[in-house]
Amino acid sequence: MSTLDPAGWSGLRALGHQMMDDMIDHLSGIATQPVWRPLPDDIRAGFTAPLPAHGTAPERLYESFTTNIKPYVTGNTHPRFMGWVHGGGNPVSMLAELLAGAMNANCGGRDHVGIVVERQVIAWAAEMLGLPAQTSGVLLTGSSMANFIAVLCARFKALGADARANGLQGARLTAYASAGVHRCVPSALDMAGLGLQALRKIPVDADFRMDLNALRAAIAADKAAGCTPFLIVGTAGTVDVGAFDDLTALAEIAHEHNAWFHADAAFGALAALSPNRKHFLTGIERADSVAFDFHKWAQVTYDAGCVLIRDPELHNATFAQATSYLAAAPRGLAGGHPWPCDLGPDLSRGFRALKVWMTLSAYGSEALGAVVDTTCTLAQHLAARITASNRLELLAPVKLNIVCFAITGYTDAQTADLVADLQESGLFAPSTTIIGGRMAIRAAIVNHRTQQSDIDALAEEILRRIAL
Amino acid sequence: MSTLDPAGWSGLRALGHQMMDDMIDHLSGIATQPVWRPLPDDIRAGFTAPLPAHGTAPERLYESFTTNIKPYVTGNTHPRFMGWVHGGGNPVSMLAELLAGAMNANCGGRDHVGIVVERQVIAWAAEMLGLPAQTSGVLLTGSSMANFIAVLCARFKALGADARANGLQGARLTAYASAGVHRCVPSALDMAGLGLQALRKIPVDADFRMDLNALRAAIAADKAAGCTPFLIVGTAGTVDVGAFDDLTALAEIAHEHNAWFHADAAFGALAALSPNRKHFLTGIERADSVAFDFHKWAQVTYDAGCVLIRDPELHNATFAQATSYLAAAPRGLAGGHPWPCDLGPDLSRGFRALKVWMTLSAYGSEALGAVVDTTCTLAQHLAARITASNRLELLAPVKLNIVCFAITGYTDAQTADLVADLQESGLFAPSTTIIGGRMAIRAAIVNHRTQQSDIDALAEEILRRIAL
Ligand SMILES: Cc1ncc(COP(=O)(O)O)c(C=O)c1O
Ligand SMILES: Cc1ncc(COP(=O)(O)O)c(C=O)c1O
Repeated sequence: MSTLDPAGWSGLRALGHQMMDDMIDHLSGIATQPVWRPLPDDIRAGFTAPLPAHGTAPERLYESFTTNIKPYVTGNTHPRFMGWVHGGGNPVSMLAELLAGAMNANCGGRDHVGIVVERQVIAWAAEMLGLPAQTSGVLLTGSSMANFIAVLCARFKALGADARANGLQGARLTAYASAGVHRCVPSALDMAGLGLQALRKIPVDADFRMDLNALRAAIAADKAAGCTPFLIVGTAGTVDVGAFDDLTALAEIAHEHNAWFHADAAFGALAALSPNRKHFLTGIERADSVAFDFHKWAQVTYDAGCVLIRDPELHNATFAQATSYLAAAPRGLAGGHPWPCDLGPDLSRGFRALKVWMTLSAYGSEALGAVVDTTCTLAQHLAARITASNRLELLAPVKLNIVCFAITGYTDAQTADLVADLQESGLFAPSTTIIGGRMAIRAAIVNHRTQQSDIDALAEEILRRIAL
Repeated sequence: MSTLDPAGWSGLRALGHQMMDDMIDHLSGIATQPVWRPLPDDIRAGFTAPLPAHGTAPERLYESFTTNIKPYVTGNTHPRFMGWVHGGGNPVSMLAELLAGAMNANCGGRDHVGIVVERQVIAWAAEMLGLPAQTSGVLLTGSSMANFIAVLCARFKALGADARANGLQGARLTAYASAGVHRCVPSALDMAGLGLQALRKIPVDADFRMDLNALRAAIAADKAAGCTPFLIVGTAGTVDVGAFDDLTALAEIAHEHNAWFHADAAFGALAALSPNRKHFLTGIERADSVAFDFHKWAQVTYDAGCVLIRDPELHNATFAQATSYLAAAPRGLAGGHPWPCDLGPDLSRGFRALKVWMTLSAYGSEALGAVVDTTCTLAQHLAARITASNRLELLAPVKLNIVCFAITGYTDAQTADLVADLQESGLFAPSTTIIGGRMAIRAAIVNHRTQQSDIDALAEEILRRIAL
């Protein structure tokens, strides 16, 4: 007998209840904590121990968690975390993580409810974006993987089954996206063997949207040079400034050239739930594939990405492989079709769908749309405060929930210092980026906990610090 | 105000405690439940609803979970689940899922404790397998992704940075693995643009180990044909029968040809913790990379895979990309190096490391090694019962924890029926595979909850049914 279950469960049960209380306290009191704390050196050093031969009582481990881990995580659950594009999570999703941990389902395949819940979530995603009901899809770690899967499907469409068997054999495929494209798209082309440079980064207009004439010219030049334009990626919500490409025009151009039309809507997809902002996404319903995340604006806990593929057969054909140890059966546990392991790179897969299903069910699309609206309104509020100040400058129009601004007269080094100071103070966590060659303070308002008072406090703290 | 947090927390707190009690009851009583139940049609149909506009009270959702989800998951937490190679999970890991859900850390990068805990776990993995302390690595969904990352690193070693920029450009790289290789390895070559056929499947000997002379001959033939042998994959625990290639010999041959030596040790890696079986892994300490899972034999909840890469610089160079919105800073939250997002395809990444850290810390390597030993002993016990029966035949030697056997005189269809019957009865969940052209019943003893009485009951139930 060497089970990892305890002989009696009362100790672990008591510990579980203690954790539950503490985690509820943690979330309900999050605003009273620092956004982020630098990790002390001695704690850092404590995580360089050798592999323990003997166990430690779970109660002692939990003490260590409370002291050494809980205070020092990313901080993105906090209302004043505005760095990068991080979701805030939500308490129902947290509880769903517990349930999924108890179920411990492997959602790679076979016939069980985990697969069915995932299909429900995929159908909801397709409905949200106006794609057909039979749209295929899978949940993944994030949009980086989702974009990669879309690239592989597009490659399959361009080169067919022979290339699955025999490789690229020198095929010269080219892809197109705006200069604001997320780095995971070139990375997907690199992983797929096409190279980072196979992505043509097309210049953008003053609104940070892909210049369509430049796109047409690039396609024509590549065709003339003997390349095959196989993929156009429209970004719906660029990571830097939240810009949306003209998806309808991109769908047209892709159609004209028999290219795959993919939309990277990592966070922007959720604008579909906002009556005031869903028009930004017009055209996405024509996409061959869409990548987006539930862990960003939809506030599901990390990680939870999603890819949708319009053509279910092509999706399956891109990944399926027949093997005897994973053969589907007409009945029993090995029933069901298709298995998610034939829709992406993962075989073993956790029950990621449960937290997505519970979050969407608990709140409903209207409340999630309201979060989208509120965060965009807060971004407008911040933009207005910036415009009103003679020390601050907006560096890009604010269409969505991201505000990039600079301090007049500040060098990049001064800006970087100010942002690091804000983070180290534990008061605010914005991030930085470069816009038009100049370092910007970047506030991405993604968290459902952020309120107007948080925005005001950020603006005032920055103004106070630069006035010193 | 549109926060997803409740106005008062007492309801959610009470619900959380209810869930905690129920999930502890669920795990402690798992042996009294059916292993698996077919999903009734009406419940299946219930998961084809439109996207809900309005929310549902979490208490009602939890009722739905209890009625419609909990009874119908995979079943791999159950001691009599012996299908495929599924881990059983463990209660500490379940609790860690709750904690990780509350932290909601994004472990793609930046300077916070999530990254530090992950490095600790990677260091433990390297130590377990005898790789150098500075070995690089990341946690992933599973070994499928881990094998893919290893293939990309091997490709980078063969082709260098130019291929990252410009793609494969017709390079003819060939890889080698035993005929028992897991399908995710050819799949990795396909995704990488090299094609499924770039993998040469080398015949195996009577012990299902790669035939080294056949390997040498294949490499010579490919070289003569102008291909570049760039990768040798040794399997440490084949999915079908649990066989181990001669890793030392493969390391030598790889060295001779300047090829990358990768070990796919998806579950077999854990044999390192068993004093009686660690010698199977001899040679793995020479690997350039190793793929393995914590969610299989190490009983961490799904999903949790791991890749180790001996050369940290090469690992980073295979994936790194500089962008302004993800630039590392000398201090503040944007500090730290390297960021895990530069070590694999994922940018956003959950705090997978916490459940691994808590599981390894709570039980220690000796108790986990004892689980490995016990499951192997149980497999020997099953093998002995099969050998002792004149109606059952072993189809492969049992070296590890997987037993493949047949019923004398049964057709493949009869075997498939028997296995589906066992699954549908809720009593046992073995799976099937094909060995030497014949359908096998495959019992993979992975779960720490499985006892000798479970093995005896399986043997007796099969003998009883075929005697009818
Ligand atoms: C537009 C865009 N695409 C892709 C990604 C990558 O998504 P993930 O971090 O989920 O991999 C992001 C992340 O911020 C993004 O903003
Ligand atoms: C030998 C081997 N390699 C790779 C894999 C794939 O691992 P995962 O299911 O974690 O993706 C498995 C799964 O059973 C396996 O047995």
